[in-house]
Amino acid sequence: MAGSFLHEGERLDELQRNGYKIIQDPKRFCFGMDAVLLSGFAKVKRGEEVLDLGTGTGIIPILLEAKTEGQHFTGLEIQPESADMAARSVAYNHLEDRVSIVTGDIKDATNIFGASSFDVVTCNPPYMTDQHGIKNDGDAKTIARHEVLCNLEDVVSQTAKLLRPGGRCYFVHRPFRLVEILSTMSRYKVEPKRMQLVYPYVDKEPNMVLIEGMRDGKSRITVEKPLIVYQSPGVYMPEIYDIYGY
Amino acid sequence: MAGSFLHEGERLDELQRNGYKIIQDPKRFCFGMDAVLLSGFAKVKRGEEVLDLGTGTGIIPILLEAKTEGQHFTGLEIQPESADMAARSVAYNHLEDRVSIVTGDIKDATNIFGASSFDVVTCNPPYMTDQHGIKNDGDAKTIARHEVLCNLEDVVSQTAKLLRPGGRCYFVHRPFRLVEILSTMSRYKVEPKRMQLVYPYVDKEPNMVLIEGMRDGKSRITVEKPLIVYQSPGVYMPEIYDIYGY
Repeated sequence: MAGSFLHEGERLDELQRNGYKIIQDPKRFCFGMDAVLLSGFAKVKRGEEVLDLGTGTGIIPILLEAKTEGQHFTGLEIQPESADMAARSVAYNHLEDRVSIVTGDIKDATNIFGASSFDVVTCNPPYMTDQHGIKNDGDAKTIARHEVLCNLEDVVSQTAKLLRPGGRCYFVHRPFRLVEILSTMSRYKVEPKRMQLVYPYVDKEPNMVLIEGMRDGKSRITVEKPLIVYQSPGVYMPEIYDIYGY
Repeated sequence: MAGSFLHEGERLDELQRNGYKIIQDPKRFCFGMDAVLLSGFAKVKRGEEVLDLGTGTGIIPILLEAKTEGQHFTGLEIQPESADMAARSVAYNHLEDRVSIVTGDIKDATNIFGASSFDVVTCNPPYMTDQHGIKNDGDAKTIARHEVLCNLEDVVSQTAKLLRPGGRCYFVHRPFRLVEILSTMSRYKVEPKRMQLVYPYVDKEPNMVLIEGMRDGKSRITVEKPLIVYQSPGVYMPEIYDIYGY
């Protein structure tokens, strides 16, 4: 059965949730731990409508559909090949009624979907501002990792418009940009309300930060306990196994 | 000898550094772990001039004098009784040539000392914005803990003026105000460059944050490994014993 869903070079990977699988192409981009941790950090309540900006393979809406009682999940992706792959993963898992994949630009998201149209917005955006080491800025990995097609301000400003009043957003990013992330969210009135730093080991600098914002929220943030990934090389902490669903 | 330095109700406490002691009055305010951790987080290089805003008992300049090769340390304190106590601690430890205590208001600090006059500014400011539970806003503990005489913006705006170009500041604060702290520092161009969260236990929310800013620094922050205080009730992690000097 999988054969008809897969194009050349693609593979079908287990998601450890509901028997779901996802189509990935290692030459393009495979989801990382950041997407999985974001899907564990995000809170989606029963009946809520969710948009994932820059969905890539569709990993975040598919995981959130499995983990939460949200009503509907939309993934927006600018690269047609990635959007097509995500749509095929949705079909493979028979999720067409619950997950939609839309091809389009984050910068046009409010035009595409309308203002105040989601309860929750998620995004695992490109982390890198520099153009260092980029050989081909049309390359799928480059677009996923570097701010060539959209930047942090695009993501936050669109999120602020797309959220209903009181709606929440969930981002994963790199700690080195923390000041800019928190300041930009505050400036666009999606106030940071909850944050968790992800430390690879208990005695190492964090390499990811998870942030929840709330449209028109008051300025007061809860910083959560540290999320520590490994207890020893190759052995996750129990909480990480829980998030992965093993 | 101690008798002539101590007023009624005061006591002389060990600092575990250079044999130094400090005068404290439990009815007024005793220094906490936050001051000690700030003195461990702050970096003062040989020959630098340091100002501590709201110095209280003088704990931070006295500890920094012991721990660093800074040239001179000044503590500014608005409450005359606290400033007097701090000055007596300086005299008790024979540090009059290296540590000065000045009575004055943080909001007047640039008028008192002049702009661009310090390499390093430290501050363990009042944490609480609310006036909840305050019985007497002239009470020494209230002034140390609540923003009755100065607020975060006063501290940051004065720090920005007091620092020489490229100078650094070090603050300790509560994580719930992190967004406001980082945004305010960025707005006044003392860019946050380094941050460490202090977690009481490895599986608990942090209760302090240590932040280094640099005047006119570029926007890029290093978040350090977690600083975890206790390994079990009453037993510090080794790093905490190191900072305390045991």
